[in-house]
Amino acid sequence: MNRRMVIFLLSRILAVEGLLMLPSFIVGLIYREAGIAALCFLPVIGVLLLFGLIGWKKPKNTAIYAREGFLTVAAAWVLMSLFGAVPFFLLGNVFPNAAGGEFVSFWDCLFEIASGLTTTGASILSAVEQLPHCIIFWRSFSHWIGGMGVLVFILAVMPMGEERSMHLMRAEVPGPVVGKLVPRMRDTAKILYGVYTAMTLLLAILLIAGGMPVFDALCNSFGVAGTGGFAIKNAGIAYYNSAYVDIVMAVFMLLFGVNFNLYYFILIGKAKDAFKSEELHVYAVIVLSAIVLISINTYNAAIGAFDTFRNSLFQVASLISSTGYGTVDFAHNWPVFSQTILVSCMFIGACAGSTGGGFKVSRVLICIKSGAAEIRHLLHPRAVQIVRLEGKPVDRSLQRSTFGYLALYLTIFIASTLLLSLQPGTDFATNFTAELACINNIGPGLGLVGPMGNYAFYHPALKMLLTFNMLTGRLELFPMIVLFSPMAWKKN
Amino acid sequence: MNRRMVIFLLSRILAVEGLLMLPSFIVGLIYREAGIAALCFLPVIGVLLLFGLIGWKKPKNTAIYAREGFLTVAAAWVLMSLFGAVPFFLLGNVFPNAAGGEFVSFWDCLFEIASGLTTTGASILSAVEQLPHCIIFWRSFSHWIGGMGVLVFILAVMPMGEERSMHLMRAEVPGPVVGKLVPRMRDTAKILYGVYTAMTLLLAILLIAGGMPVFDALCNSFGVAGTGGFAIKNAGIAYYNSAYVDIVMAVFMLLFGVNFNLYYFILIGKAKDAFKSEELHVYAVIVLSAIVLISINTYNAAIGAFDTFRNSLFQVASLISSTGYGTVDFAHNWPVFSQTILVSCMFIGACAGSTGGGFKVSRVLICIKSGAAEIRHLLHPRAVQIVRLEGKPVDRSLQRSTFGYLALYLTIFIASTLLLSLQPGTDFATNFTAELACINNIGPGLGLVGPMGNYAFYHPALKMLLTFNMLTGRLELFPMIVLFSPMAWKKN
Repeated sequence: MNRRMVIFLLSRILAVEGLLMLPSFIVGLIYREAGIAALCFLPVIGVLLLFGLIGWKKPKNTAIYAREGFLTVAAAWVLMSLFGAVPFFLLGNVFPNAAGGEFVSFWDCLFEIASGLTTTGASILSAVEQLPHCIIFWRSFSHWIGGMGVLVFILAVMPMGEERSMHLMRAEVPGPVVGKLVPRMRDTAKILYGVYTAMTLLLAILLIAGGMPVFDALCNSFGVAGTGGFAIKNAGIAYYNSAYVDIVMAVFMLLFGVNFNLYYFILIGKAKDAFKSEELHVYAVIVLSAIVLISINTYNAAIGAFDTFRNSLFQVASLISSTGYGTVDFAHNWPVFSQTILVSCMFIGACAGSTGGGFKVSRVLICIKSGAAEIRHLLHPRAVQIVRLEGKPVDRSLQRSTFGYLALYLTIFIASTLLLSLQPGTDFATNFTAELACINNIGPGLGLVGPMGNYAFYHPALKMLLTFNMLTGRLELFPMIVLFSPMAWKKN
Repeated sequence: MNRRMVIFLLSRILAVEGLLMLPSFIVGLIYREAGIAALCFLPVIGVLLLFGLIGWKKPKNTAIYAREGFLTVAAAWVLMSLFGAVPFFLLGNVFPNAAGGEFVSFWDCLFEIASGLTTTGASILSAVEQLPHCIIFWRSFSHWIGGMGVLVFILAVMPMGEERSMHLMRAEVPGPVVGKLVPRMRDTAKILYGVYTAMTLLLAILLIAGGMPVFDALCNSFGVAGTGGFAIKNAGIAYYNSAYVDIVMAVFMLLFGVNFNLYYFILIGKAKDAFKSEELHVYAVIVLSAIVLISINTYNAAIGAFDTFRNSLFQVASLISSTGYGTVDFAHNWPVFSQTILVSCMFIGACAGSTGGGFKVSRVLICIKSGAAEIRHLLHPRAVQIVRLEGKPVDRSLQRSTFGYLALYLTIFIASTLLLSLQPGTDFATNFTAELACINNIGPGLGLVGPMGNYAFYHPALKMLLTFNMLTGRLELFPMIVLFSPMAWKKN
C-alpha cells in the first residue's frame, strides 16, 4: 500500500475542509456573531490548514489502486466528520446559552455533522432557530459539501493520473457504475461541480424571488442540492407556508435525484439522448405513481385538492430523493398506506450519479431484471439470458457486484435494526425506519423519528452506530467496510 | 408443453388428496360426529376420486421438463387448496352452530386451508376449541400433508423416469439445491417420507407419555412435523402449561428445521459426516445466540430463570423453524429487542431440505459469502474469488439463482406489504410482519397478527393476497410466478 500517497491525499482533504469553513466564519461576522464565529471556527480552520502542510509536497510515487482508493475515501469522511463536529462542540460547551443547551456531548455533535456531510439530515436537535447563524450555516453548508463529495472536488482542482482519479471517483460517486462524461476524469469532475453549483444558485435565486430571506434561501438550497434536509426552522419547510416554495423545492429535489449526466447532455445539446434513459423513465413512473396514490389516499376535503397534491408531491420528492424535508407530519397524520408508499420510496432512493441516496433505481432495475432472467432460465435452461440496462447488456461482474451490494446492505440493515431495538421505549417501526433513514441518507422515518421528531433519545453508542450507517450508506458500503476489514490493511 | 401429462399428474394428486381426507372422516366417526363428518368430507372425497379417474391411464408420452414441473406443482397446490377448503365451507354454512359462526365465507376457508397446507399456521379463527374433532383434525393434518409435499409423496409411490421426478422434486422441496440421497429419486422420496413419518410418531409418543390426550398429541405432532403451527386450543400450547411439553415440542421444532439428509446419514451410520454440515453449524449458532439474548432481555425474577429460558427456547424454535406455535404473547409482552430478534429469525428461517420455511440458512450463507467475495474482488481485482458452501465451490448459476430468488422475494415482499397497508386500522409493524409471516410460512407476527391475534380482520382481497403469498413462499417463489406468467403458457 502506498501510505505516503494516502496521507498526502488526506492532508489535502483536511486543508480543503478548513477552507470550506471560512464562509461560515464570514456569515458569523455578517450577523455580528464575531466572538462565537471566531472561537468556534478559527481554531479548527487553523488546525486543518496545519494538517494541510503535511501534504505540501506530493510524493514521488503517486500510484494508487482500488484498495488505497477505498481506504482514502473512507478515512477522509471519518476525519472530516470528526473535525467538522468541533465547531458544534465548542459552541455547546463554551457558549451553552447561545446553543440553547444543545451540542453538549461530542457524540451528538459528531452525529449531527456526519448527518450533514452524508446529506442524511437526521438531527439530534429539538429546536434549531435559537442557534447562531454561523452554526446554522455550517450545518446546512455541510450538505452541499457532502452532496457532490470532497474527493470529486479535489479531483476537479488537482491534476492526477487518470487511473488514480478513477479509483477515488468510483469510491465516492453514488451508483453501481461510474461513467466518464469526457475522456479526462478531471474534466468530468469539473463539469459535475459546475452543474451542481449552477443548479444550486438557480434554486437560491428562485427562492429569493419568491420572497424567502437570502440566508434561508441559501441554507435551504444547500439542503436541496445535496439532498440533505436539515431544516433551519423548528417547523421545517412548513414555516414558509407557501405553495410556491413547496413546489419549487419539490421540483429541485426531484431534479437533484436525477443522474447529473443528464444535465451535461442537455448542455451539449444532446437532450434527446439524455431523455432516453431507462433509469430516468422508471424514476419518473415511480414518482408519479407515488404522488397519485398518496393524493387519493390522503385526500381531505378540508384541505382541498391542490394542497393535497402539493403535500404529496413535496413528501414524495423529499423522500425518494433522500432529502428528508417535511411540510406535514406524515408519521402521525397520514394513513398507513401512504406511509408504506413513502417507506418504499425511501428504500428505492434516487438515480445513480445524482446527489441522492438510497439503493438507487438502477440497482433495483438490475435486481428485478436478474430475477426475471432467472425465471426465463428455469423455463428455457438452454437459452442464454441477457440482462439489459439502458439497452446495453449488464455484464456478469456488475450483476455480481450489485447482488454483493444487496447482501451486504441487508446484513448491515438487519444487524443495525437489531441493535437499535435495544433502546428502551422504541418500537419496531421507529427502529426499522431510523435505520432505513440513516443508511439511505434520508433523515426522518416513522414513529419517534418522524419529521417532527429527532434522534436525540438514542443512547450515544447507538448514535455512533447510526453515524457509521450514514457514512457507510453515503459511500455505498464498500469503502467503510474496507476501512474496518483487517484484510485491507495487510501488506501485500 | 405436454398437457396430457400435466393433467394426468394433477388428477393423481387430487385422488391422493381425497384419500388423505379419509382419516379426518374416521376421526369424525370415532367422536360421534358422523353427520357432520359424512356431509363435510364424503362429497368432497367422492368428487376428488372422480377426478382421479381422469388419470386412470398414463399417457404414452410421459416426458416433462422444467416448465411442466413448475406448472404442475403450482397448479396442484392451488387445486388442493380449493378442494381442501370445501369441508370448512360446508361446516360453516350447513352446521353454523357447530362452527361457532366461523368458516362462513369461502375466502376465509381457502385462507385457512392454504395456511394449513403451506404449513404457515396463520388463522382466521378467533376460537378453535368449539369446532368438531374431524375438522380440527383435517386442519392439523393438512400441515402434515404439506410439510413434506404431496408431489414427493406421489414420487414415493409412483414409478416415474428419473429426470421427470427431478423436475417435480426441485419445484416442491425447499432449498436452493435438491440433492439425491440415493441414485434413484423414487427411493430418495421414500426415505424422506419414512424419516418424516417415524419422527412424527416418535414425537406423538413422547407427548402421550407426558400425559397429553392422544388426539391432541397427534394434532400437535402434525403441526410440529410440518412446521405448521395451527393451535387446537384457544390458548395455544400455553394451554398444557407443561415444561415437558414445551421442551419436547421445541426440540422437535428445531429438529424438523434441519435438513432431512442429516437423519438419513445418521441412519446409515455416517453421523460424523452429517454433523460436519456448515449450514447446521450456522443454524445452531443462530438458535443458541437468539435463545441466550432473549433469555437475558426477557429475564423476569417473578418467572424465574428456568421458565425464562423455557419461553425463549420455545419461541425461538417456533419462529426460526417457521412453525409459529406460541406459549407467550411476545407481540405485546416482550421488549422490542427480543421482538426484533424473533423477526430476524423469522426472516432467516430453517435449513434447506427441511419442512421449515423462510429464506433458508444456506441462502443467507450464499448471499453473505458472495458479498464478502465482492469486497475481496474490489481489493484484489485480478484474483479469482470462489464462494464455498459445505466446503464445495458454489457455482455461478447457483449464486445467480439465489440472487434472482432474493430479488423476487423482496419485490413480492414490498409490493404485498404496500397492498396490506390499505387495510384501515393497521400499522406498519402489523402489515410488515403479516407479510413476513405468510411468505415465510410462519403464522404469527407482531401487532394485530401476534400469537394471540388472528388474520380475520383483513379484507377478503387481502386475504387472497396473503394466500397467494403463502403458496408462493411454500413453493419457493418460482412455480407460482411461472403459473401466473404468460410466457410459461406459450406454445414452444
